[in-house]
Amino acid sequence: MLATIIHGEKDIRLEEVPNPVLSSGGDAIVKVVAACVCGSDLWPYRGITPTDSPKRIGHEFVGIVESVGPDVSTVKPGDFVIAPFYDCDMTCANCLNGVSTSCLHGGWWGSDDRLGGFADGAQGERVRVPHADGSLVATPGQPEAELVPSLLTLADVMGTGHHAAVSAGVTAGSTVVVVGDGAVGLCGVLAAKRLGATRIVAMSRHADRQALALEFGATDIVEERGAEGIARIKELFDGIGPDCVLECVGTTESMDQALRSVRPGGMVGYVGVPNGGAELPIGFMFSNNVGANGGVAPVRNYIEELLPEVLSGAINPGRVFDLELPLAEVAEAYAAMDERRAIKVLLRP
Amino acid sequence: MLATIIHGEKDIRLEEVPNPVLSSGGDAIVKVVAACVCGSDLWPYRGITPTDSPKRIGHEFVGIVESVGPDVSTVKPGDFVIAPFYDCDMTCANCLNGVSTSCLHGGWWGSDDRLGGFADGAQGERVRVPHADGSLVATPGQPEAELVPSLLTLADVMGTGHHAAVSAGVTAGSTVVVVGDGAVGLCGVLAAKRLGATRIVAMSRHADRQALALEFGATDIVEERGAEGIARIKELFDGIGPDCVLECVGTTESMDQALRSVRPGGMVGYVGVPNGGAELPIGFMFSNNVGANGGVAPVRNYIEELLPEVLSGAINPGRVFDLELPLAEVAEAYAAMDERRAIKVLLRP
Repeated sequence: MLATIIHGEKDIRLEEVPNPVLSSGGDAIVKVVAACVCGSDLWPYRGITPTDSPKRIGHEFVGIVESVGPDVSTVKPGDFVIAPFYDCDMTCANCLNGVSTSCLHGGWWGSDDRLGGFADGAQGERVRVPHADGSLVATPGQPEAELVPSLLTLADVMGTGHHAAVSAGVTAGSTVVVVGDGAVGLCGVLAAKRLGATRIVAMSRHADRQALALEFGATDIVEERGAEGIARIKELFDGIGPDCVLECVGTTESMDQALRSVRPGGMVGYVGVPNGGAELPIGFMFSNNVGANGGVAPVRNYIEELLPEVLSGAINPGRVFDLELPLAEVAEAYAAMDERRAIKVLLRP
Repeated sequence: MLATIIHGEKDIRLEEVPNPVLSSGGDAIVKVVAACVCGSDLWPYRGITPTDSPKRIGHEFVGIVESVGPDVSTVKPGDFVIAPFYDCDMTCANCLNGVSTSCLHGGWWGSDDRLGGFADGAQGERVRVPHADGSLVATPGQPEAELVPSLLTLADVMGTGHHAAVSAGVTAGSTVVVVGDGAVGLCGVLAAKRLGATRIVAMSRHADRQALALEFGATDIVEERGAEGIARIKELFDGIGPDCVLECVGTTESMDQALRSVRPGGMVGYVGVPNGGAELPIGFMFSNNVGANGGVAPVRNYIEELLPEVLSGAINPGRVFDLELPLAEVAEAYAAMDERRAIKVLLRP
C-alpha cells in the first residue's frame, strides 16, 4: 500500500510499504477514509525536530474497519471508525481516570506500540490499530460524506481544543482568551463556546482565521501580541484579565502571553506541545495564583461526549479544513500548511 | 507599645515602638490577643532572605478592636476579630473573584500598605488594620479562651492548608498526598479530610507530627523522601499515584516530590512559598497531564466557610500550636521553631 514517509527537512514522500497485518488478537486493520496533517507534523518537516532516518508519519484518521483479531468485540469489518492520535486500551487505571494518553499499554502511530509491534502512521492507505476495542469508536451507521471532516477532528484537534478548555476550567459564564489561531486554537474557541463561555477573545492576525473564530463563537479579536497583547487583554477584562486562557501553540512566547493575560486566580489550559525550552515561572504563578493545567490531550476520552454533536450538526469543527488534497499530493499538503496557505489540510487516500 | 523587630539573622528583639493611630477613615486599631510565628518568618530569621535594616515582623493575629475610623461599619470596638495575613478591601474585582491576596488596594503587615501608610507587624501589642471592613471578620460574641488557637489558624495556616486542598481539586472520594509536615501541611491534611478525601497520606519523619496528622485524618504515613518517597507513594496508589498532591513546603525538592508523585491527570495544589529557584518542568507536566495550581493563599475568602466549624469544634486546627509563650519570649519562640522543637508557637502579648 501507499504511505507517507518523512525523510528529512521538507522531504515528504508517498511510498510503497507492506500492507499491515493483524499481529495481536486485539488488533484491527482500518482502511483510511480521511487523514490530515497536524501542526505538530511541521516540527520535523521544518527540521526543528531532526529526522535521523526515514519514518512513517501522520496520526489523525477516520476509516472503515477491514478486519479484526479474534479478541475484538466493539468494532467489526465495515464499521466507520474514529481513531484518536494514539492507541489505548480504555481499561487501565489511567484510561479510566480520563487520561488515555497515559494508557499503560498504549502507543503512538508511526512507531512501535508499547507492546513492541509497529503501528502504521496515519497518512497512508491502511493502519494497524492495536487495542482496537479501546482505541476505536464506531459511528452509528455510515456517516454522510459531509460529516467526515468534522468526524476527523475528533481524532485530534477538536478533542485537543476541548481539552484546553476543560483544563482551563471553562464553564457557564466563563471569560476566555484563546492564544493560537491554528486548528486547535479555533477548536478551542468552539469548545469554550459549547461549554458556556460568555466572552471569548481569539488572538489572531489572519483574516481567514479571525472569520472562522467568529463563526465558532469568538466575541472579540485581538491582533496584538507580547506586552501589547497582554495590555489589550487586561483592558478588555476590567484591567485584571479573563478567568481562563487556552494556550494552543507551545512556544515560550505563547505560554508567557497566556500566563500573564489570565486574571489572578485564573487558569491556563495548555495543549501546545512545549517547544520553547522555558519552564513555567513558579514565582509569578505563586504570587498571582495563576494555575497551569493540561498536556497531551486524551481525545479518546472525549469522543463519546463530542460525537453526538458532530452527528447532529450542532458543532461543525471540520470547518478548520480549508484545503482538501488526494494522498498523492501529501507533500503539497505539508507545504501549504508550512507556508500558512492553509489552516489544516485533509487528505484522502 | 511593644513589638517584635528583626535585626538580622537570628536576631529577634522585642522593642518599644509608637502606638499605631487611625490614619484613614477605613482603619481599625486592634489589640492583639494572640499572634504566632510562621514558617515563612524563618526565612529572614535564618538569613536566607537577608534583612537589610531592622523591620517589624509577624503577620498572623486575632484580637479585640479598640477603635475604628468613621468609614468602618462591619466591626466595632470590643469585637473579637480574625485578620488574614494581609489586608484587603473585599470589594475589588480580585477580592470578589476569591483572590483577596491580589486585592487591588491591599497590603502586607509590617510594611507600607498599598495606600502608602505603614501597617504594623502582628507580633506586637497592637496593629493598625487598613480596610478594616474587608480585612477583619468578627466572631459572634466573645469566643471561649480554648478556641483562640484555632481561630488564630484562620489568619494563615488553616486557610493556607485549605487553599492547597481546594487548588488541588480535593473533593469527596479524592486520594491525597500531603508533602510537608509543618503547620500548613498538617492543616492541609485536615482540609482534605473535611473536603471528603477518602485516603490521605502524610509525608513526615517526625513522630509528633505523624501523630497529629493521624488525628487530623491521615490514613497513611510515608517517611521516605525523594525517589524512594515517590516509589512508595506510587506503590500505595495502584502504581499510578494519588489524584491530588498538596505541596506545603516550597523547595525545589518538595515540588519535585509533589509533581512526580501525583497520577497522570492529577493536580498539585501548592502553597509553599517558592524558595528553591527551580521553575516548573513543563515537559514532564505536559506529557503526564499533571497540573499545578495554587499560590499565596487568599485566606480571607475562606474565613466565612471555616469559622463555623471552628466555633462548633467540628475542626480543631489550633492543635498545631504545641508551644505557647508570652510575647516577651518571642526570641525563644523563633528558636524553638527554627530548631524544630515546636511545630508552631503561639504568642500572647
